[in-house]
Amino acid sequence: MKYDTIIHNGTIVTVNRDFDIINNGLICIKNGIIETVSSAPSDYIPSGAAVIIDAKGGIIMPGLVNTHTHLPMTLLRGIADDLPLFDWLNRYIFPLEAKYMNPGNVRLGSLLGCAEMLLSGTTTCCDGYFNEEAVAQAAFESGIRGVFGQGVIDFPAPGIPDPSDNIKTAARFVDKWQNASSLIRPSVFCHSPYTCSEETLKKAKQVTRSKNLLFQIHTSETKNEFDMIKSKHGISPVKYLERSDILDEKTLLVHSVWVDEEDIRIISKHDSKISHNPQSNMKLASGIAPVPEFLKNGITVGLGTDGCASNNDSDLFKEMDVAAKIHKVNLFDPTVMDAKTVIQMATIRGAEAIGLKDETGSIEKGKQADIIIIDTDSPHLIPMYNPVSHIVYSATGSDVRDVIVAGEIIVKNKKMLSLDIEDIIDKVNQLGARIKKEL
Amino acid sequence: MKYDTIIHNGTIVTVNRDFDIINNGLICIKNGIIETVSSAPSDYIPSGAAVIIDAKGGIIMPGLVNTHTHLPMTLLRGIADDLPLFDWLNRYIFPLEAKYMNPGNVRLGSLLGCAEMLLSGTTTCCDGYFNEEAVAQAAFESGIRGVFGQGVIDFPAPGIPDPSDNIKTAARFVDKWQNASSLIRPSVFCHSPYTCSEETLKKAKQVTRSKNLLFQIHTSETKNEFDMIKSKHGISPVKYLERSDILDEKTLLVHSVWVDEEDIRIISKHDSKISHNPQSNMKLASGIAPVPEFLKNGITVGLGTDGCASNNDSDLFKEMDVAAKIHKVNLFDPTVMDAKTVIQMATIRGAEAIGLKDETGSIEKGKQADIIIIDTDSPHLIPMYNPVSHIVYSATGSDVRDVIVAGEIIVKNKKMLSLDIEDIIDKVNQLGARIKKEL
Repeated sequence: MKYDTIIHNGTIVTVNRDFDIINNGLICIKNGIIETVSSAPSDYIPSGAAVIIDAKGGIIMPGLVNTHTHLPMTLLRGIADDLPLFDWLNRYIFPLEAKYMNPGNVRLGSLLGCAEMLLSGTTTCCDGYFNEEAVAQAAFESGIRGVFGQGVIDFPAPGIPDPSDNIKTAARFVDKWQNASSLIRPSVFCHSPYTCSEETLKKAKQVTRSKNLLFQIHTSETKNEFDMIKSKHGISPVKYLERSDILDEKTLLVHSVWVDEEDIRIISKHDSKISHNPQSNMKLASGIAPVPEFLKNGITVGLGTDGCASNNDSDLFKEMDVAAKIHKVNLFDPTVMDAKTVIQMATIRGAEAIGLKDETGSIEKGKQADIIIIDTDSPHLIPMYNPVSHIVYSATGSDVRDVIVAGEIIVKNKKMLSLDIEDIIDKVNQLGARIKKEL
Repeated sequence: MKYDTIIHNGTIVTVNRDFDIINNGLICIKNGIIETVSSAPSDYIPSGAAVIIDAKGGIIMPGLVNTHTHLPMTLLRGIADDLPLFDWLNRYIFPLEAKYMNPGNVRLGSLLGCAEMLLSGTTTCCDGYFNEEAVAQAAFESGIRGVFGQGVIDFPAPGIPDPSDNIKTAARFVDKWQNASSLIRPSVFCHSPYTCSEETLKKAKQVTRSKNLLFQIHTSETKNEFDMIKSKHGISPVKYLERSDILDEKTLLVHSVWVDEEDIRIISKHDSKISHNPQSNMKLASGIAPVPEFLKNGITVGLGTDGCASNNDSDLFKEMDVAAKIHKVNLFDPTVMDAKTVIQMATIRGAEAIGLKDETGSIEKGKQADIIIIDTDSPHLIPMYNPVSHIVYSATGSDVRDVIVAGEIIVKNKKMLSLDIEDIIDKVNQLGARIKKEL
C-alpha cells in the first residue's frame, strides 16, 4: 500500500511555524511518518491506503505533550487534599510512597497513567519517579512516547534504600534504555536543589550530559524551598544551579515559580527549559510562575499536569484552559497567554522543552505521526468559529476520539487498543481498596 | 406502583446538613419527590418501582446549581477571546447581540445551553438575558429547573428598542411566568449599577420585592466599574446599592470581585447572596473575588459559569475545580475552599442563593428529586478513596451518566431524552456558519 493510514474530513490545527489551520485537511502516513499534509475535498480519499480515518468534521491536531508527570501517583489520586503542604507530604504522600511504590505497583499505576493520558489526547510525556524502570516498561507497553527519568534524591527512596546508590541506579537505567526503543528516551530526574547535595546534582547532571540526554529537576516551586536555598547558599535556587554548572539547554526546570528577573535572564542565557504546572501550583498554593515573562525572554516553556496527587488528573486540555486564564487574572490583562500560545506550550514548545521537537509536537511532513482527533459534535463544542479557541477554552480530554502515536492507532472511538483497560481498572480498584483499608 | 423511580448501587453524596455520605445508597422517588434515602445491599431493590436505575458503583449526588448564566450566549462561544475588555464588548459582543439575539435565536441558543448544562449535570440554573421569554420557553421544553430574569438596562437592548419600556417588559415577563410552571421561576436581572440609573434599579427591585422574587445584578465585577461608581456616587457599588435600598435577602450580587471589608459586612448584614464565577473573572482579567472572606462572614455564595462567551462552556465540574484552586494560590493557603465547601457552593448554597433551597441542592427526604449519577468507571476516576475529592478535582461534566429533574429522567446513559439534540446541533451549526460569514 502507498500509505498505512489516511486521515481526512477535519480541520487541521498544524501548530507548524506559521500556525497554519487547514480546512478539509488530509494527512497521509507511511511507516509512522507524516508524508503529506494538505487540503482536499472532504469526500476525496487518495487510493492506496490500508486504513482510512474519517475525522467527521472534527479537529485534527498534534498529540499533546505533558512535560511533567509522576505516573505511578495515579494510585494516590485524591487520597489527601486541601491540607497544609507539610502534612500532605509527611503524613500521606511520603509514607504511602515508601509503603506501596514497589516495582509491581509502580508498573500498575503507570499503566493507569498512560491509559488516562492517551485517552485524553496526550501522546508524549516526560516522567520522573523512582523504580522508573517499571514506569518505562509500562509506557512501552501502552505505546506512548516519552522521556523517563530515574529519580535521584539524597534520602532512602522506593527501590533505593541506600541513597549512595542513587547515581549508580540512574546510570544503569539510562544505559538500559538509551537505545532500547524509538519511543522511550531515558533521563535523570533530580528531585530538587534542597533534597540533593551539590555533589549529587553534579554527578547526576554528568550522567545525562555525557549522553546528551534530558536532565529534569523541580526548581523554585515553593517559597519555602527558595528560602531554604537562599539561607544555605546565599543565592536563589536558579543561581545556585547555575553556579553548580547544572544549567544548559538540556536542563528542564520544573515549576520555576519563585524566580526573579535575574533568574529569568540566567535561564534564558543557558537556554534551559521550563515545565509550567499551573494547576498543581494552585492546588498546593505554591504560587503563580511568571510565564509571560519567561516567554518575553525567549525561554521555551512546556505545560505539565504534575502527579495525580496534586492536580488530580492528567487532562492537558484542562491544564491549557487554566494556563490561559490564571495569568490573565494575575496580571489583570486578558490579552496574555492567548489560546494559540497555550496550544503551542502544550504541543511544540513542550516537545522542544524535553528535546523532542524534531520528532513530535506539530503536524508537518517528515515528523512522527503523533496525531489526535477531537470529536466536535457535542453541545459544548458548537458553534465553532475558531478551533483554536475550542481546544483551549471548551474541550476536555473526554472529547478526544482517536489517538495515533508514531502512526499506530492507540485509541479508536474513545476505546484503548493497546492496553486491557478493564484489567487495569480492576487491579487498581483492588489495590486502592487495600490501601484505603490500611490508611 | 409504590415508587416511580428507584436509584441503587452507588455512593450518595447527600450534601445534607451533616454532609452524609452513604455507601450502597438507595433512593426512592414518588411524584417527583425523594421519599427515602438510605443504605442497602447493592443487590437489594424494593418491590413496586416503575423504573430502577443501577448506579453501578458510581457517585449519586444532587444535581448542580449554576447561579449565573446568559444561556443564549452559547451562540457566541469562542467568537472572540483574549482581547481587551473594551474591544471584546464593543467590537464583538454588543454588536453581535444587537444583530442576532432575536427571540428565535435566543430560543435556539437557550436550547443549546440547557442541553449542555443538563448533559454535564446541572439541573438548576439562574439566568439573566434579554428576550428572556424565549429563554424561559426553551428551559421549560428542556425540563431544567431555574430562575429566569428578564434583563433591564438603560440602553436599547434585544427586544427593548426603547429603554423606557424596560421595567414594563420585566413586569410583564414576571407576571406571565409567576405561576406558569413549578420548574420556572421568574426574576428581574438588572445589568449593573453603572448601566442602570438609580430610578431604574429601584423600580426593577420593586417589581421583584412586591412578589418576593429574586433580583439579580452584576456588581463590582471590574475595577473600572468600581472606579466609575466611586467617581459618580462617591461610594463603592455595594454601598451605592445599599443606599438605594436594593439589598435584601432576595438580591443576588453577581461577581462581587471589587469589594472591601465594609462592603462584605454590608452584604452580610442584608443577607444578600453572591454568585461566584471564577473562570469568567479570570478569562476577562477582572480579578479574584474574596470568597473565603464571604464565607467567614456567613454570606451565602453559589457558583456560576457566566455566559459562554467568557468561559467558554457551562461545565460546573470544571468551575468547581478552578474555584477550589484559585483561592488557595491567591491566599497561599492550600486548606481554603476545600472540596466539601466547593460542592456545597455548587449545590445547596447555590440553591439557597437563588431562593430554591427548600426544593433542590441536596438529596434529602421530601425534596425534589434533582439527582445526577457520575460514572466512575474511567481511568481518571480510579482509585476512589473519597468521592468528594473526585467530584471537585477529577471529574468533568462528561462523566455524568444520568440526570433526573423533579423525578423526570432527562439524561439517560449520556443521551438527552427531553430535547432533539441532533436538530439543535444542526440549527446552531447553520446559524454559526452564517454569523461567521458575516463577521
